[in-house]
Amino acid sequence: MSKPALRTHKTTELTTQHVEQVITINGWVQSRRDLGGLIFLNIRDISGQVQVVVHPETASEAFQIADQVRSEYVLSVTGQVALRTPETINQNMATGEIEIKASAIQVFSTAKTPPFQILDNIDVDETIRLKHRYVDLRRPKMQENLVLRHKAMQSVRRFLDRHEFLEIETPIMTKSTPEGARDYLVPSRVHAGEFYALPQSPQLFKQLCMVGGLDRYFQFARCFRDEDLRADRQPEFTQIDLEFSFIELEEFYQMMEEMFVTLLREVKGVEVAAPFERIPYAESMDRFGSDKPDLRFGMELINVGEVLADTEFKVFASTLASGGQVKAINVKGQAHWSRKEVDNWGKVAESLGAKGLAWLAWKPDGIKGSIAKALKEEEIVAIAKITGVEEGDLLFFVADKPSVVAATLGGIRARLGRELRLIDESKYHFAWITEFPMYEYDEDSAQFMPMHHAFTRPMDEDISLMETDPGKVRAVCYDLVLNGYELGSGSLRIYERELQEKIFASLGLSPEESKEKFGFLLEAFEYGVPPHGGIGLGFDRIVMILAGETNLREITAFPKTSNAVCLMTSAPSPVDGQQLDDLHIAVKMKEKGSQ
Amino acid sequence: MSKPALRTHKTTELTTQHVEQVITINGWVQSRRDLGGLIFLNIRDISGQVQVVVHPETASEAFQIADQVRSEYVLSVTGQVALRTPETINQNMATGEIEIKASAIQVFSTAKTPPFQILDNIDVDETIRLKHRYVDLRRPKMQENLVLRHKAMQSVRRFLDRHEFLEIETPIMTKSTPEGARDYLVPSRVHAGEFYALPQSPQLFKQLCMVGGLDRYFQFARCFRDEDLRADRQPEFTQIDLEFSFIELEEFYQMMEEMFVTLLREVKGVEVAAPFERIPYAESMDRFGSDKPDLRFGMELINVGEVLADTEFKVFASTLASGGQVKAINVKGQAHWSRKEVDNWGKVAESLGAKGLAWLAWKPDGIKGSIAKALKEEEIVAIAKITGVEEGDLLFFVADKPSVVAATLGGIRARLGRELRLIDESKYHFAWITEFPMYEYDEDSAQFMPMHHAFTRPMDEDISLMETDPGKVRAVCYDLVLNGYELGSGSLRIYERELQEKIFASLGLSPEESKEKFGFLLEAFEYGVPPHGGIGLGFDRIVMILAGETNLREITAFPKTSNAVCLMTSAPSPVDGQQLDDLHIAVKMKEKGSQ
Repeated sequence: MSKPALRTHKTTELTTQHVEQVITINGWVQSRRDLGGLIFLNIRDISGQVQVVVHPETASEAFQIADQVRSEYVLSVTGQVALRTPETINQNMATGEIEIKASAIQVFSTAKTPPFQILDNIDVDETIRLKHRYVDLRRPKMQENLVLRHKAMQSVRRFLDRHEFLEIETPIMTKSTPEGARDYLVPSRVHAGEFYALPQSPQLFKQLCMVGGLDRYFQFARCFRDEDLRADRQPEFTQIDLEFSFIELEEFYQMMEEMFVTLLREVKGVEVAAPFERIPYAESMDRFGSDKPDLRFGMELINVGEVLADTEFKVFASTLASGGQVKAINVKGQAHWSRKEVDNWGKVAESLGAKGLAWLAWKPDGIKGSIAKALKEEEIVAIAKITGVEEGDLLFFVADKPSVVAATLGGIRARLGRELRLIDESKYHFAWITEFPMYEYDEDSAQFMPMHHAFTRPMDEDISLMETDPGKVRAVCYDLVLNGYELGSGSLRIYERELQEKIFASLGLSPEESKEKFGFLLEAFEYGVPPHGGIGLGFDRIVMILAGETNLREITAFPKTSNAVCLMTSAPSPVDGQQLDDLHIAVKMKEKGSQ
Repeated sequence: MSKPALRTHKTTELTTQHVEQVITINGWVQSRRDLGGLIFLNIRDISGQVQVVVHPETASEAFQIADQVRSEYVLSVTGQVALRTPETINQNMATGEIEIKASAIQVFSTAKTPPFQILDNIDVDETIRLKHRYVDLRRPKMQENLVLRHKAMQSVRRFLDRHEFLEIETPIMTKSTPEGARDYLVPSRVHAGEFYALPQSPQLFKQLCMVGGLDRYFQFARCFRDEDLRADRQPEFTQIDLEFSFIELEEFYQMMEEMFVTLLREVKGVEVAAPFERIPYAESMDRFGSDKPDLRFGMELINVGEVLADTEFKVFASTLASGGQVKAINVKGQAHWSRKEVDNWGKVAESLGAKGLAWLAWKPDGIKGSIAKALKEEEIVAIAKITGVEEGDLLFFVADKPSVVAATLGGIRARLGRELRLIDESKYHFAWITEFPMYEYDEDSAQFMPMHHAFTRPMDEDISLMETDPGKVRAVCYDLVLNGYELGSGSLRIYERELQEKIFASLGLSPEESKEKFGFLLEAFEYGVPPHGGIGLGFDRIVMILAGETNLREITAFPKTSNAVCLMTSAPSPVDGQQLDDLHIAVKMKEKGSQ
C-alpha cells in the first residue's frame, strides 16, 4: 500500500474559489452519514471542518474504504471541490457552501470509539476528559482557547520586546526559602541530604537582574506553589514577570496599560480605554468591600453609620460605639423577593463571616424588613436619602467591624452582580488598586508583618509614620484588577540600605536575623542598587478571562486536578526504591493516629 | 534630601547631536579619575558608557558628592552635553566625542568595593564570579550575550508563529518514566510516598498534542537531566521543541533551514546558504569519524585499507582480516613536527581508545615515520596517491575496528582543526546528518535497542529488513549539526499500530511489556493518530555558538557549577525537618563503606 497523500489545504482554507480544483485534505472523521446510497464524511482538522461525499460508482475504491471508516479515523481525502446545491448549503459551517467529491481515500490511522464525542458543551464527566486529554484537546473550544493563549503570549512578548525588556530565564531548581512551607522540593543526588526548591516566583532573581544592571527584565515564568487548589489555581502556573530600573512609576503604569490595550486589541479585537482607573486600597475596600472589585456594575457599599449616629437600635448602636461600621447595598428593583430568598442571602452573609444580614424593602404597600420596626422613621428617611433608594428597591445591611462588613457586603455584591446579570460580559474593566498598607497586624504574633514583602517601598510621605503609626504607612504597591479578578501585584522596591534597615527594624528583625532571612539578596544590595520595581501578572488567569472561562483547566493543555494529580499520566506515582536510594531519601509514612 | 532625578537618556543614546542640551543619565560608576583639579567619572548603563566631568567651581555641590564617589556607586548625573576637545576624543568609546559637564550629581546607592572589576577578560576565578553573579552580570560581554539570547528567542518565536506553530506549555511536574534513572524527583505532600518527575524532554506531551489535533506545536521547553555535567551541559536547559502533523519531511527541512537562516540574519547579520548539506550517518562516520562533524575544514578520513589488501605488515593485515579498518588523515604541512609532538598525538589517540597512532612524514630528506620500514615502497606510493600527500605533509594512521577508528581519527581531526587554526571562526556551517541506524546492538543485553527512541519510523525501504537484518535498518531520524556541535535530534514517528507492534516485537517486548513501558502514549495511539514528527534543538548550545563562547555558563544568567550547585544562592541546601515530614520523606544517608 502506498503512503497516504499529504494535504494540499487545511479544510477551511477551501472556498468557492477552489471549485473544480483537485485537492487533498487530512484530518479526523467528525461524523459519517449514509444517505441515498452515498457516504458523507465530515473531516475535521485544526482549522475546522469540511464535508466529503463519496459516490459508490465514480469512486468505488474510495467508497469501499469510506464504508469501513468510523469516528476519529485519521484520513487523507483527495477529490474535487464542488459547489453544494442551494438546498444543501449549511450556513452554520464555514465551508458550508462546498463539499469535496472524493476520488481517493486513504487511512492514516484507525481509531477505537472515543470515550466521548468531540463536541463542545457535551455533558461528560471532567475526570474522563482529563484522563483522555489527547481526545479532549480535539474539541473546537479547547483548541480555540489554546490558540488564544498562544496569541496572547506572542502579543505580550512582542510588546515587551519593543519596550526593551530582556527575556531572561531564571532557574527552576533553586533554593528553598525560610518561609518555604509551600515549596516543592527536589532532592539532590550529588549532595546527599540537600534539596533544591521549585520557585514560587522569580522575585529574588529578577531583583538580582536589576542589581546586575540588566535594566529591564521579563519572563513568562513558570511558578510552583504546593497549596490547596481552586478553580483558579494550579500547582504550576505561568506568570508574566517584569522588573525595571530607572523608571517613573507613572511611565510604568502607562506601559502596562498600553500592553493590555494592545493585547485586547490583538487577541480579542476589543478596544479598551486607557488610562485605567486608579483606586486607593482604602477607597476600594470602602466602596466595593474588596481589593479586586468588579467595576462593570455599581451597587457600591454605602456607609449608613453617619445617619445613624444617635440610633437607639442596639445592634447598630453598639457596633458603631465599638468602632464598627454599618453599611448597606441597594439591590435595585428586588423588593419583591420572598422571605425565603432574602433569608438565603442571610445565609450567604453568615458564610462570609457576618453575624447576620438586616434588610429593608420598599414595597408598594410600604417599607418592610427585618429592621423596619427597630429604626425610627426619620432614620429610615435618612437612609433612603443617602442610599438613593426608590420604590421597588431592597437594601441589605451589615453591621460589624470594618473587615467583616467589607468581606460580607463585598462578597454579596459580587454574587448579586453575577446572579442578577448586572454585568456586561463583553466589557473588560481594568483598574489599578494603589496605596496598599505597608504592614498588616498579625494577631497571632502580635506584630506588624509586611503586606506585600519586606523590600516594598513605603510611600515617601508616610516614612515618618513608620515608627509612630506603622498601621497607617502606605506602600508603593499596586494591584492590577480586571472584572473582579486580581491579575497581579507589584511594587517599587527599596534600594537604600538605611531605609531597608529601618524596615527590618520595624519588623522586629535584628541585622543578624535579616541576614539569615534574606541572605544573598541583602549581600547583593551592598554592591550598588538601582531604583527598581516590577510586577508579576497571572498569565493563566488573564487567558482564562479572555477566553470567557471560569476554570484554569479550560485554558491549560495538560492540567492537574484540584488534588494536584494528572489523570492522563497518573502523576505523581510511586518510584523505584533504587531511585530513592540514589537520592539519599526514604519514604516515611506517618503512623496512623499521629498527626 | 530630594529623590535623585531619573534618566532622560541612556548613556549611548547621547551623541554630538545633543551638544548643549541638559540631560540626565543614571548608572554605575565604572571609573573615577582626578585630573587637573577636575573629577572624571565614567558612568555605565545597559547601553554602554559616557564620560562625566565635574568642575569644583561651576558645580561645587556636585563636586563634593563626586569626591565621595567610588566604583559601582549608582548615580544620577544631570548636566550639559559638550563636545570634547580634539585631543581628548576617545575613538574606542561609542560616546568618545562627547562628555557631560555635571551640574548635579545624586547618589541612588553606595557600593562596597566589588569582588572584581567590571571588565571583560579579567583574570578572576569563576567561583568568585558565580558567587557574585549580580556583579558579574554587569560585564559588557555578559550583557551582550544575554541580549543575544533574548534576540534569538524572539527571532525563533516570531518565525514559528508565522509558520502557525502554537506555543503550548507542557507540565514541569510530570511522571517519572521507567528509564527515569536521570529524573529529578519531586515528592508529593498530598499523595504520601508518591513523586512527580521533572521532564527530561516534553517528548510524550508533544506527541500527545499531535494526537490531540493541535497540528503544530512548539515550546522553549525547560528540561532537566540529573547527570554529570560538562561545559556544554547544565542540569536544567532549554530546548526549542517542535512537533508537526501532516507535513512532508522535505518541507520540514526547508522550514528549519529558513528558521536558522533568519536567526543568523536577525541576530548576527550573517547570511547562511540554504539548503543545508545532508550527509547520511554512515558517510559522516566514514569521512569525518563523527556524527557531528565540523565542516569548516577538510582533513577527511581516508580509507587506506583498500590499497593495503595484501600488506605483510602484521598490524594492518590482521586488522583488515578481522573486518577492521585502516584509515589515515593528512596533516598538511606538519612533516616538520618533532618526535615529541607526534608522540603527544599518539597519547591523544590512546586516550580516545586506539591502541596506537602510526605515522608517516614526507620530509625533505625522505619519508620517515613509525611505519616507514614496515610498509613496502609500492604500498607507500599507493597511500601517497589516495591521500594526495605532498612534500611537507604528515599522515596519521589508525588501524582498528571501525568504531575505534572513527572515534580516534575523528577526535584527532577535531582537535587539529582547532589547534592548527584551520577553522574560519566567522563561518556557520550547518548540515543535516540523516539515515541514522534504527537500532544499535547492546552488547550487555545482547539485543538491539532503539538508537533514537521506540517511536521513530524506520525508512520505508528498510522495513523488510527489520526481521532479517535489524542492524541495517535505517530510521527517518535527523540531527542538525553546526560547527562540530549537535544542535538537536529529531525524527518522524510511527503512527500505524501494526508497524509499532512490529517494532516492539523486534525489541523483544511483549504487548504487556510495551504497555507497561509506554502506558498512556500507547493508549492514546488507539484513538486516531496523524502522521507526525519533530525535533528538539538545544537552545543554550545554539546561543553559545552564536555568542562565540565555549561554556554554557557564559550565556546563562544564573548557571550552576559542574557540581550542580548555584554558588550565589547556595542551592541545593538542607531543609527543615518539618518540611520533610510534610512531604512524607526522610533523609537516608548511605553508611560509610556500603556502596
